[in-house]
Amino acid sequence: MSKSSLLSGVTVIDLSRVLAGPFATMTLANLGARVIKVEIPGTGDDSRAFGPFHNGKSLYFASINCNKESIALNLKNADDRIVFEKLLEKADVLVENYRPGTMEKLGYGWETLHVKFPHLIYGAASGFGDSGPYSKRAAYDMVVQGMGGVLSLTGYPDQPPARVGISIGDITAGLYLTIGLNAALYNRTVTKVGSKIDIAMLDCQVAILEDAIPAYDKTGEIPGPLGTRHPSIAPFQSFQAKDASIIIAAGNDHLFTLMTEALGRTDLATDERFKTNELRHENIALLQKEMEMTLGTKLVAEWLDALNEKGVPCGPINDIPHVIADPQVMARNMIIEVNDPVIGKVKTSGNPVKVVGASDETLLRPSPELDADRAAILAEFMGVSK
Amino acid sequence: MSKSSLLSGVTVIDLSRVLAGPFATMTLANLGARVIKVEIPGTGDDSRAFGPFHNGKSLYFASINCNKESIALNLKNADDRIVFEKLLEKADVLVENYRPGTMEKLGYGWETLHVKFPHLIYGAASGFGDSGPYSKRAAYDMVVQGMGGVLSLTGYPDQPPARVGISIGDITAGLYLTIGLNAALYNRTVTKVGSKIDIAMLDCQVAILEDAIPAYDKTGEIPGPLGTRHPSIAPFQSFQAKDASIIIAAGNDHLFTLMTEALGRTDLATDERFKTNELRHENIALLQKEMEMTLGTKLVAEWLDALNEKGVPCGPINDIPHVIADPQVMARNMIIEVNDPVIGKVKTSGNPVKVVGASDETLLRPSPELDADRAAILAEFMGVSK
Repeated sequence: MSKSSLLSGVTVIDLSRVLAGPFATMTLANLGARVIKVEIPGTGDDSRAFGPFHNGKSLYFASINCNKESIALNLKNADDRIVFEKLLEKADVLVENYRPGTMEKLGYGWETLHVKFPHLIYGAASGFGDSGPYSKRAAYDMVVQGMGGVLSLTGYPDQPPARVGISIGDITAGLYLTIGLNAALYNRTVTKVGSKIDIAMLDCQVAILEDAIPAYDKTGEIPGPLGTRHPSIAPFQSFQAKDASIIIAAGNDHLFTLMTEALGRTDLATDERFKTNELRHENIALLQKEMEMTLGTKLVAEWLDALNEKGVPCGPINDIPHVIADPQVMARNMIIEVNDPVIGKVKTSGNPVKVVGASDETLLRPSPELDADRAAILAEFMGVSK
Repeated sequence: MSKSSLLSGVTVIDLSRVLAGPFATMTLANLGARVIKVEIPGTGDDSRAFGPFHNGKSLYFASINCNKESIALNLKNADDRIVFEKLLEKADVLVENYRPGTMEKLGYGWETLHVKFPHLIYGAASGFGDSGPYSKRAAYDMVVQGMGGVLSLTGYPDQPPARVGISIGDITAGLYLTIGLNAALYNRTVTKVGSKIDIAMLDCQVAILEDAIPAYDKTGEIPGPLGTRHPSIAPFQSFQAKDASIIIAAGNDHLFTLMTEALGRTDLATDERFKTNELRHENIALLQKEMEMTLGTKLVAEWLDALNEKGVPCGPINDIPHVIADPQVMARNMIIEVNDPVIGKVKTSGNPVKVVGASDETLLRPSPELDADRAAILAEFMGVSK
């Protein structure tokens, strides 16, 4: 990490597994924090067993755990508890994503830790949070995607809903956890004491529903899935061109006029049925038909050139190989290559929080083997090497 | 905001419009920051014109701008520039989401501001960021959902892709911007100077692809949409019950066994074809058929009771009315009622960053009318009232 990393000097002890917690600590590590994974001896983070594998190592685990150290500790073992407490003594942040109540059973509930280590900031992510009737239930990503409403908005009308193709339930919780932890780090510089951040995956799904809740509350209309269409802006969706789909987002009257010029269909700009966004939204089926009559005559690449020249927001639907090869994605260091001793060189996502003037390192420390940093950590925190 | 709010004392000047920027400043406001929207005289934030409306006020705008103040300033007008600079002098954070280059044209580029206001933290969100070949292009949510790969993973195989039913392109950028700003606030307590955070919506889409990039890089397989199925875990999807769909996420062998007990189908647990997650994943079509034969005999509510009793992660697919009425969502204060002088009482999403022991206010200051706080802001920052 560069010297100018925003969180340099911050140490995070990370008990979390799989995704929401590890995604948060990956984000903290990308910002320059030191992250020490405390894993279960023998098996470690469950996601070490998630496929696909390469040379026997999980690519899933590798994608979420770069820039972290690992020590295996059994928190029910008296000797290991001494080590764990030494870590907490010197650390700034503790992260866990157990089911609520688990840390209390281990004797490491917030009430206890806050008395013993008043400086310590504690971040917890769980399916439903520390309170409420479902608190003790487990949840996985797909469960909260469904319960939180996002699934009911994704897919095509009159078809079964589609899952958001990434684990948005976990990832959103990881991002909100990171937000809370960073705010708590700032707050500690004022108050001198740590806080506990309690993140529920379900809460985070509700928080990202945009205007769906007030719109339903006042109009009584239940929003549903719309394919690729936007609920209120048109044209703002994918269309069929000659070879593939193209996205065109002409979000206002001016952009719509420019779009009709790029398509050579200025007749659409003066058509009474398409004169305002409201009318275009109302008559979108007709507009789509008219646009696709023209779009179907040329390739996506040709239309992108024509639309970009006019300044109309547009884009292809990229699959993963095309994402990796995109010149903008590459120019922003968003694909980085990690030199993993087991996997070999492997591409993974970069850090999207760019700090102007700071170095944006492209060679990451690979995800650690289980317990790989035991000796160094013990020497540093316990003053021994064993 | 309660006294114990994490960002209390932090002042944010917010030039941003519509979604990515305002979502970030809403999140900061929820954490206790003071947010002053600086809007274009006459029209204000573009989203004030986005439907649906209630009593003439945009519900879209209302859902993203609670807890903020508003002053209208024309940044090309000399008098208004004096006011703006007075605000920056006392503020901690400036947020904008113009196309890169716009602030420079106004004479408020980072180089200039950093010299004049070294304490100021600057957060920018744009479609493609400050650098790279597409930097000056505009992008909307749908464009980056498509270019960043998420769209290629969402929907059903052999069908057109589906848009994620919320503006995940903007919202993810807003969350990463908030992360960067909070880290910069912490960092400023160490370095005593501000930083500029440069967030690109496209970068943020690439950052949330989980293991898609390393998995493709090492296996050569291009991931595609899977309906509601998970790419590697089974059963972890929605199933058809008697009345509607139900989500069951039996993420490991133990949970699968418990699930077969809840369904009264312990034969599936001993079936050689479903013995491991790998086999279940391979034979998911067959497993789905077997499970739905049983699930189709009872209502979702009945199965949820049976599965929850066994501790199997499961849930309904809630539409917005069911989200609002969910006892857990209500218990967590995730639906709050705002008393808007124009709209009247209106429900909106709560704050998902819960701080243990701090108050979690449920009555929010409504989203401001354009320029509503001019007199108070001028009196405070300029020592005059006009």
